[in-house]
Amino acid sequence: MGKNKKIVVIGGVACGPKVAARIKRLNPKAEVTIVEKGELLSYAGCGLPFYISGEVHDHNELMATPTGVVRDTLFFNMVKDIHVMNHTLAKSVDPKRKIVCAVRIDTGECTELDYDALVLAVGSKNFKPPVPGLDLKGVHFLQTVEDAQKIRNKSGDLKGKHGVIIGAGLIGIEVTEAFKKQGMDVTMIERAETVLPDLLDPEMAFHIHQELKANGITLKLNETVLEILGDDQGNVISVKTSSGKIKADIVLVAVGVRPNVRLAKEMGLELGETGAIKVDQFLRTSDPSIYAGGDCVENANLVNGKAIYAPMGSTANKHGRVIADHICGVETPFRGVSGTAICKLFNLNISRTGLTEKQAMAQGYDVITVLNPSPDKAHFLKDARMIIIKFVVEKLSAKVLGAQIVGPGDVAKRMDVTVATIAAGRPVTDIAHLDLAYAPPFSPAMDNIITAANMAENKLKGIGLSYSPLEVKAKMDKGEAFIFLDVRSPLECEVMRIDDPRIVNIPLGKLRSSLALLPKDKEIIPFCKISLRGYEAQRVLVGEGYTQVKYMDGGLVCWPYEKTVNS
Amino acid sequence: MGKNKKIVVIGGVACGPKVAARIKRLNPKAEVTIVEKGELLSYAGCGLPFYISGEVHDHNELMATPTGVVRDTLFFNMVKDIHVMNHTLAKSVDPKRKIVCAVRIDTGECTELDYDALVLAVGSKNFKPPVPGLDLKGVHFLQTVEDAQKIRNKSGDLKGKHGVIIGAGLIGIEVTEAFKKQGMDVTMIERAETVLPDLLDPEMAFHIHQELKANGITLKLNETVLEILGDDQGNVISVKTSSGKIKADIVLVAVGVRPNVRLAKEMGLELGETGAIKVDQFLRTSDPSIYAGGDCVENANLVNGKAIYAPMGSTANKHGRVIADHICGVETPFRGVSGTAICKLFNLNISRTGLTEKQAMAQGYDVITVLNPSPDKAHFLKDARMIIIKFVVEKLSAKVLGAQIVGPGDVAKRMDVTVATIAAGRPVTDIAHLDLAYAPPFSPAMDNIITAANMAENKLKGIGLSYSPLEVKAKMDKGEAFIFLDVRSPLECEVMRIDDPRIVNIPLGKLRSSLALLPKDKEIIPFCKISLRGYEAQRVLVGEGYTQVKYMDGGLVCWPYEKTVNS
Repeated sequence: MGKNKKIVVIGGVACGPKVAARIKRLNPKAEVTIVEKGELLSYAGCGLPFYISGEVHDHNELMATPTGVVRDTLFFNMVKDIHVMNHTLAKSVDPKRKIVCAVRIDTGECTELDYDALVLAVGSKNFKPPVPGLDLKGVHFLQTVEDAQKIRNKSGDLKGKHGVIIGAGLIGIEVTEAFKKQGMDVTMIERAETVLPDLLDPEMAFHIHQELKANGITLKLNETVLEILGDDQGNVISVKTSSGKIKADIVLVAVGVRPNVRLAKEMGLELGETGAIKVDQFLRTSDPSIYAGGDCVENANLVNGKAIYAPMGSTANKHGRVIADHICGVETPFRGVSGTAICKLFNLNISRTGLTEKQAMAQGYDVITVLNPSPDKAHFLKDARMIIIKFVVEKLSAKVLGAQIVGPGDVAKRMDVTVATIAAGRPVTDIAHLDLAYAPPFSPAMDNIITAANMAENKLKGIGLSYSPLEVKAKMDKGEAFIFLDVRSPLECEVMRIDDPRIVNIPLGKLRSSLALLPKDKEIIPFCKISLRGYEAQRVLVGEGYTQVKYMDGGLVCWPYEKTVNS
Repeated sequence: MGKNKKIVVIGGVACGPKVAARIKRLNPKAEVTIVEKGELLSYAGCGLPFYISGEVHDHNELMATPTGVVRDTLFFNMVKDIHVMNHTLAKSVDPKRKIVCAVRIDTGECTELDYDALVLAVGSKNFKPPVPGLDLKGVHFLQTVEDAQKIRNKSGDLKGKHGVIIGAGLIGIEVTEAFKKQGMDVTMIERAETVLPDLLDPEMAFHIHQELKANGITLKLNETVLEILGDDQGNVISVKTSSGKIKADIVLVAVGVRPNVRLAKEMGLELGETGAIKVDQFLRTSDPSIYAGGDCVENANLVNGKAIYAPMGSTANKHGRVIADHICGVETPFRGVSGTAICKLFNLNISRTGLTEKQAMAQGYDVITVLNPSPDKAHFLKDARMIIIKFVVEKLSAKVLGAQIVGPGDVAKRMDVTVATIAAGRPVTDIAHLDLAYAPPFSPAMDNIITAANMAENKLKGIGLSYSPLEVKAKMDKGEAFIFLDVRSPLECEVMRIDDPRIVNIPLGKLRSSLALLPKDKEIIPFCKISLRGYEAQRVLVGEGYTQVKYMDGGLVCWPYEKTVNS
């Protein structure tokens, strides 16, 4: 028995249990120990907002297998033959002697665990902003089941309470909906100009702003939290920001997480440029006996090869498998991620991968962008829903650098196809010819992502010439003169339009017979509802010898500024 | 004007209008004429079952743009500057003189159209089986809007009528649901042993059989239609098959389509091995001035490079763009399709691509297969739904040769990811590391397709050893002795189980302590509900020195034979 390989895994949430279980499947004789500081193991951390909302009734559901068996220490012992030490802190590691010093939190009892391989699956910690009042009762972070229980169960009836969310990242967005579902009055505060500022470009974030407002959320952008204020009993009462005070019974601070690198630092393991633990493609740290995976490591970004810190439960699980394989002598290189994320907000689905336009520009890429708003299935079916696809494509390589998709329709499918194309190193033009599954209940005959790829191809070839809505707005703000050519029918214009003196309305069907109205020496910017007709108008005018014509990408649907709507 | 390029497009449904519109965008001065024998243009042929069901109220919705404008001849003229001759038959073509003889169907008036480029977008024709009675009133085929109108509008009230569908292909499946939605009593007849026999393997088709039965459809497999019988007035009254007579008020014959190659044959254009028009990657026929696209041509199968006849509206649209590009001097090669298809049947979504296991075996591939049944999103959310993924993977290349996905959950997304991976020429192991969009409302932390890819990897490496349910059944039918090891809990076995003398029940958690019950000289086939625990049991037993252990793929969920169920 002494020759059996000994593996110690620190951390029992996502990556750790995956490593342990996979090792036992590959090498049933291996001796695997998981050290976990909390009570709970292998729970679905990403499910916490759905516990807060009440959609998940019992926290045990977050820890159960699909057949309903709770993954407790007994489960790991009996079913997986894995030794679990919970309520136990891995206090220190001696990498030379290969020994972990594990301290039982309640008794202080110390155990020395020797290892052949050590796995750090120690996750991340919430970033605590330098704001007074974080310790007040009613101020919460969200990382563990215990955190979620405090919010949902120990705050009394949530209905009618004032909830303030600090930070409009993924967690903030998800908890906003959860709070609202519990009947709370919710305010969201974000320092940046838009929600999800690192994940979406402004014209895409606009649709999330609309959805928040439509669901009665008070959204405060460009606002910095200065202090969280409490009463005599230490209960939170309000949040003070750069522009005033907001009443608060419950505050969630969700301004991001940082990798947990305490042990790694103490051992002298190399950290990467993002501050997370640096690992190779087998998830080995700078100490060849020590692996690290999940939220404590950085990944390679498949789009640009740079290091990216993108903590995700899905990635943590993949890491776990790669680590287990390598410990058992199977080489399964992990090439990286593209920074994919998705979340649901009321009726809106929001997804993204790769670089935003802003990030791509900042990194010096020469890009074209595409905005494609269209229904997610055959438009003659009643349950067709809009989705808007934005592509950021490198001119030189024709590769997708980034994609953002939002809308009430099926964004996840189109995102995953894009992710697969990026991972395969294939250009956007490949997407246009994919033999995607088509029938009217599932997609239009030309799937949205195929149309977006075709639009990108048109622009790469100089056939389609366009301005983004932001560029058009900038021109307007500078007072530039141009013809803003609405090529929709008068009836459509009646219902919804941009009111601006530059607007001229000529329906596409009358364009060829109305050229006399359009001078050739003035810039013309055609558009329609989604700018398919806007693009056609551009082609017609170019064919007629007009040289200053670019359509407005995405049309009225993607115009994030003032619109006149008569319903 | 005489120097403008003249293009004649024959066929106005999917590929034809796409060619015409794209040409006008690329080259606004081109003179484009569409010749269409029917009244209607650019309609969504794939939407016809949804018109029959009543989900689409007005047939004009099938012909409208997403903004509700009907694509009639005036629309094409005014908006697209395309000349449309409808009710007009392209009677013959003189490829030497480059002239199409077009005959107005109502008047017999003949027009000669000269062309620089000719496009055949002439579609397919329904196959008419050699069965007496096809001309009876009430016997229908389904290809045009007129066909659909005859079925829905000219048969009186459909409620309570007896509908018989001959042929369990995609159209037959879709119309079955449409008939049922109209309140009809529906019988489906299929000559083969399973529905969708060319598209699915038997254990996957099984779930469609179940869904048909659960929705009150009478399914008759292994039955050949001998004759369709009528009354004195020529109205259909019944369908006579190899096993009896079935009462019928309305009959749909849906036994497949054949490419329309009349003109191509008359001109001496080369046909391919499938009988459809042979084209190169720019959709050129053997005559360099003549292109063909859509349902009248064959495609290259991306999986094996062979010719495949896979008529699809989605492909027709792609062809249209490639043809227009080439006519206008832009080279956009079309590499092929993988034979993707999808349909909805009541609560079941059904999708497939590439080769079935049967087809792969027949073509001499050495394959492994995978069955992965699991919920399509985080199992703790109430709206998680089961999907079953089958992969057929070539051992040598580790490439996916085919995939089949069925279930009430989101099958389309996983199919499209697989399609993208096949098109990129990447192995199944790539799928395992895709940075797919994960949040609990969209997928499990390990997406179903990632788990399926991991299972494939396990099998390719010899870590996972399994039998398919069909193989296990064959062993049972041969009377072979083995231990059929159910590793679920006794409670689960109480609810649902296979009753067979070979069954031994040892829950996974007790397996290591129950080895005395399991002789090493006998074959052992472990399984559970979905065979995740079945696989773990295999690994435990292999670790204990057992040499004859393979788990049963897919577990009880994928077992298409008798099960004892106590609800």
